Amino acid sequence: MESPIPGGPRGEQEEQKVLVSEKSWRPCPRARRRLQGCLEGVKRLLFRVGEDWYFLFILGSLMATISFVMDILVFRLYEAHRWLYQELGDILVLKYLSWTMYPVALTTFSTGFSQSITPHSGGSGIPELKTILTGVVLEDYLAIQNFGAKVVGLTCTLMAGSTVFLGKVGPFVHLSAMAAAYLGKMRTVVTKDYENKFKQNEMLVAAQAVGVATVFGAPISGVLFSIEVMSSHFAVRDYWRGFFAATCGAFMFRLLAVFNSEQETIAAIFKSNITIDFPFHLTETFFFVILGKPIYTALVVLLLASITFPPGLGQLMASRLSMKEYLISLFDNRTWGALVPNASAFPPPRVEPGALWQEWCHPSATIFGTLAFFLLMKFWMLILATTLPLPAGYFMPIFIYGAAIGRLVGETVALLFPHGLHSEEGLYPIIPVGYALAGAAAFSGSVTHTISTALLVCEATGHLGHLLPVVLAVLVANAITQKHQPSFYDGTIIVKKLPYLPRIRSRHMASYRVVVEEFMERRVVALAKGGGFQEVLVALDASTDAEYPVVESAGSPMLVGTVSRAQLVTFLQSHKHPQAPPGEKLATAGTLGDSCTIEPIMLQLSPWTSLHQAHHLFEMLKLQRIFVTRSGELVGAVSRVELRRAIEELANPK
Amino acid sequence: MESPIPGGPRGEQEEQKVLVSEKSWRPCPRARRRLQGCLEGVKRLLFRVGEDWYFLFILGSLMATISFVMDILVFRLYEAHRWLYQELGDILVLKYLSWTMYPVALTTFSTGFSQSITPHSGGSGIPELKTILTGVVLEDYLAIQNFGAKVVGLTCTLMAGSTVFLGKVGPFVHLSAMAAAYLGKMRTVVTKDYENKFKQNEMLVAAQAVGVATVFGAPISGVLFSIEVMSSHFAVRDYWRGFFAATCGAFMFRLLAVFNSEQETIAAIFKSNITIDFPFHLTETFFFVILGKPIYTALVVLLLASITFPPGLGQLMASRLSMKEYLISLFDNRTWGALVPNASAFPPPRVEPGALWQEWCHPSATIFGTLAFFLLMKFWMLILATTLPLPAGYFMPIFIYGAAIGRLVGETVALLFPHGLHSEEGLYPIIPVGYALAGAAAFSGSVTHTISTALLVCEATGHLGHLLPVVLAVLVANAITQKHQPSFYDGTIIVKKLPYLPRIRSRHMASYRVVVEEFMERRVVALAKGGGFQEVLVALDASTDAEYPVVESAGSPMLVGTVSRAQLVTFLQSHKHPQAPPGEKLATAGTLGDSCTIEPIMLQLSPWTSLHQAHHLFEMLKLQRIFVTRSGELVGAVSRVELRRAIEELANPK
Repeated sequence: MESPIPGGPRGEQEEQKVLVSEKSWRPCPRARRRLQGCLEGVKRLLFRVGEDWYFLFILGSLMATISFVMDILVFRLYEAHRWLYQELGDILVLKYLSWTMYPVALTTFSTGFSQSITPHSGGSGIPELKTILTGVVLEDYLAIQNFGAKVVGLTCTLMAGSTVFLGKVGPFVHLSAMAAAYLGKMRTVVTKDYENKFKQNEMLVAAQAVGVATVFGAPISGVLFSIEVMSSHFAVRDYWRGFFAATCGAFMFRLLAVFNSEQETIAAIFKSNITIDFPFHLTETFFFVILGKPIYTALVVLLLASITFPPGLGQLMASRLSMKEYLISLFDNRTWGALVPNASAFPPPRVEPGALWQEWCHPSATIFGTLAFFLLMKFWMLILATTLPLPAGYFMPIFIYGAAIGRLVGETVALLFPHGLHSEEGLYPIIPVGYALAGAAAFSGSVTHTISTALLVCEATGHLGHLLPVVLAVLVANAITQKHQPSFYDGTIIVKKLPYLPRIRSRHMASYRVVVEEFMERRVVALAKGGGFQEVLVALDASTDAEYPVVESAGSPMLVGTVSRAQLVTFLQSHKHPQAPPGEKLATAGTLGDSCTIEPIMLQLSPWTSLHQAHHLFEMLKLQRIFVTRSGELVGAVSRVELRRAIEELANPK
Repeated sequence: MESPIPGGPRGEQEEQKVLVSEKSWRPCPRARRRLQGCLEGVKRLLFRVGEDWYFLFILGSLMATISFVMDILVFRLYEAHRWLYQELGDILVLKYLSWTMYPVALTTFSTGFSQSITPHSGGSGIPELKTILTGVVLEDYLAIQNFGAKVVGLTCTLMAGSTVFLGKVGPFVHLSAMAAAYLGKMRTVVTKDYENKFKQNEMLVAAQAVGVATVFGAPISGVLFSIEVMSSHFAVRDYWRGFFAATCGAFMFRLLAVFNSEQETIAAIFKSNITIDFPFHLTETFFFVILGKPIYTALVVLLLASITFPPGLGQLMASRLSMKEYLISLFDNRTWGALVPNASAFPPPRVEPGALWQEWCHPSATIFGTLAFFLLMKFWMLILATTLPLPAGYFMPIFIYGAAIGRLVGETVALLFPHGLHSEEGLYPIIPVGYALAGAAAFSGSVTHTISTALLVCEATGHLGHLLPVVLAVLVANAITQKHQPSFYDGTIIVKKLPYLPRIRSRHMASYRVVVEEFMERRVVALAKGGGFQEVLVALDASTDAEYPVVESAGSPMLVGTVSRAQLVTFLQSHKHPQAPPGEKLATAGTLGDSCTIEPIMLQLSPWTSLHQAHHLFEMLKLQRIFVTRSGELVGAVSRVELRRAIEELANPK
């Protein structure tokens, strides 16, 4: 197998090979050649099933490894912090400092580090990815440089624990999309295959699934959740990619867990593996402290940490629990209301893994008081935390919040019917954990406008018993929220002013009668095929479009094709201005049609295409702009802006 | 609330109302008016959340009720047959007759009855539905007349039991699609809303999910399976409809089960409900016996029943089990190989529900022998059974077959490693049921080209423990089969010569360079706007298209729009032939442009659109035919036929 030399043209490679074989004599040329043939055959055989498999396998395994190592690091540092907090004894000031300074330092580092490398690494990343999947090119958003920044930043955010109350789903989706984009580039080098938009999109779709699946260890709901969140239309063809990559990820995750329990040192090996791979100078990281954003982060986290300080208000909101422990405690199988009389009703001096629910006990507030207080406080604390410019996910906190709502309702019902509900066959006891499951699924489902959270809850907890009531709760929650607001991710897209195409909500008959002619942009800057320097200059000044329509002539605006802005700029540079002084060695004559490559039109609308059809086309074909022709003549153009305006007018007629 | 009078124009309705209120005096006009206003308000409020909910609820409940009643009927008759067979004692001839005549009679009745009502009711129905969802209009396939025929026919098929080895998934998908189409028509009457193709499609998509979900009682995998089988692209917007309807169906199914265990008579009430609703004359059913098809059915089923006769070959293939009992026995938690030495190793005289696995025992053949023999025989018996022209599903037998393969492999592995597999921590025992689950999911998944069978297995058996290995098995099975053959449903579509659009498998660079110009149909029969009687007559003779393109004039073929065949026929009827004798009162002059409605063109391709793009458009927009224009001039057309030819040429270049 010849090693591919990237960059070098074919001829050069051949020459180098000849030189090498002349210089060094090697034994058994025939046997070696036969072996080489065999290897080529094996390669062909393996790649015949489609090289996608290998890349998806690598992607899944890579992300699972990162997720696993991150989990271990976070757990270790969290344990260390908890130990420190315990060992400080009764000195309240030291206790307070250790409680607050630790998350403040970590989140400040996270903000500064990630923002100094790239401003794209902040936040969740799902809104931007969703925009990319609609066909918009967001430069550098998937560049591998962000990868290290986001991994380190996210690790620090997660280490800060439940004080800042942020999760890791969104960033992991972004991380695996970056990895997929990078692997895609590498693939073009290895297989010398034609890299195209189709393939890139397929890999990104699989990457989303991997991101969700490696966080929850739930391959199927991972795939479904990512489909629901990311796309408006889904190709069933892309289905298996997500499943395969997500399953590989989940397998790797378990494999690593087995390794880890056998030999504790493997984590350290992975640790060093990660730190040497950062694609930027480590010295850079010392300059970020001067940035302004870390100060905001520090102040907000200080406030959050002060509120959650366990001897203070924290004792009313079980603040000693980590994010994972919050979930475990809320999904506790027992009825807390029935347990409290038997227990001491005081939280134990240190968190006990076997009785996490006791953290919710308080001698004067009861579990109902602590749950209600938790919900009240975390509501605005979570909103505050989402403003922090550090890499963080917002799904997990919403999930926990929903579980707390469900647990509160469940415990209340159990209190009202202490002996269970009557039926013909006897008493059915109330099981609050069912309410907690439904609450988590319904709340997170309604915020993200997804239904697969119902399956996620079941996959994550491992039992399917409550599936039916959970699905119903999610459906009702979705029915209500989808009527009144866009999803959390769409909301972020709108706030960040990224290109966004709203859904046509109106099913009214009148909405089917709106046609393209009524809302298209009529003033399109077009170029005549015979246009010269002057015309091109005017057109470039008149608009900033990436491509310009070319028509037959100004008199008969028959649409011929499009020409890119870059081509026009080259045209201007290579042609002389008509009023320029003579003597320059540039072409004076020459029209657009002669000098520029005119791309043919793939698809065109007619003025009578309906709004619904146009919307459908934009959504499914990921269009950005399309020209409207009547009998071949250019009469207008429709972009996402016009479409959005038409849809908004439909909802709020003047 | 006024009762809608379908058909009557608005004015007539008003008039009738006035007459009624004049004739009959009623008390408290003001209170009644207020109540009416309140009801109108409630109606508006309820319908504001979208009337879809109610219709989906009705659809789900209806199909669950039918499925439940059918299950009860089948079970009762199966029990009766088994009882008869037992009671006959040792008279072998009588035993043989009761074993064979029973399924022969039922399947003959099923074939004759359903075929006499409508030929569409045979088979599974999924291939035809899949074709309908690609936009092809199959006349009468969703007519409600088929409903009764399919319900009765399917019930009889299922009553014949495991002898004919056929299931009910496919027919139930067809049944719920028919119900959805009928409900959709009723809806337009109730809500007076504009019924459009979008909405109809949405309801059909939900109906598929209901069909699968009510058979397995598995809402989530029902939705997923129907998506995978039916569509190439799926709108996430339609997602919740399937989930909601499927969940309603599953709930209703459980509710009915609760009712049924309390009062045994409820089944009878439902029974009578069904039989009086057949929308055809019962006398018709007596004529079907003369049809030829029942004889073929009778002969085939006689052969199948003779082979499965328990005292004969049947004892080697556990033929006394019903379809459901086959599954229960194969998904038995225990290792048969370890159980056999303790058991009598003889099948008990009658089937014992607690020890169904003993049916697989045979003193001389061992369980391996019976499993292998079952696989060997059922292979060709299943193929033979699929040729029967009766309403029947083919998913369940494939599912059971796969489970048997998995069980055989699992038992073999357990025999090879009787003490389990070694690991660092001790011995892992082999659990054959895991292999059976994986086998069922992988085999049915590979035949239907779906991945969600993995989830189906878990939902149906209620435990998620084996999810990861099952998903992997399904993925590998899919990877192999998808390379080599179309899915079972696509295969049926091809065999039945229904319109079918193959996938573009080639990802080779050359495939991206094929453009529409190379494969489009150039000889398109077009009409000039100024064309008269003679031109229209020629065009109608020249092709049988449903719509014809209209161009500006024969000299400049600028595409103006399309005109339907029906319009052209009307044009011919209302215009006089130029050579016709004078005196008839028809218009002599008048051109096409004046007399016919020319529909505008919504979308047009250009000659440089690539094959991939065109395929994408056809798949997603459910197109049947699209015109190709160059600078507005009609140069060709592309239909599914041309597209398919181009894709096939790509796979097998000349």
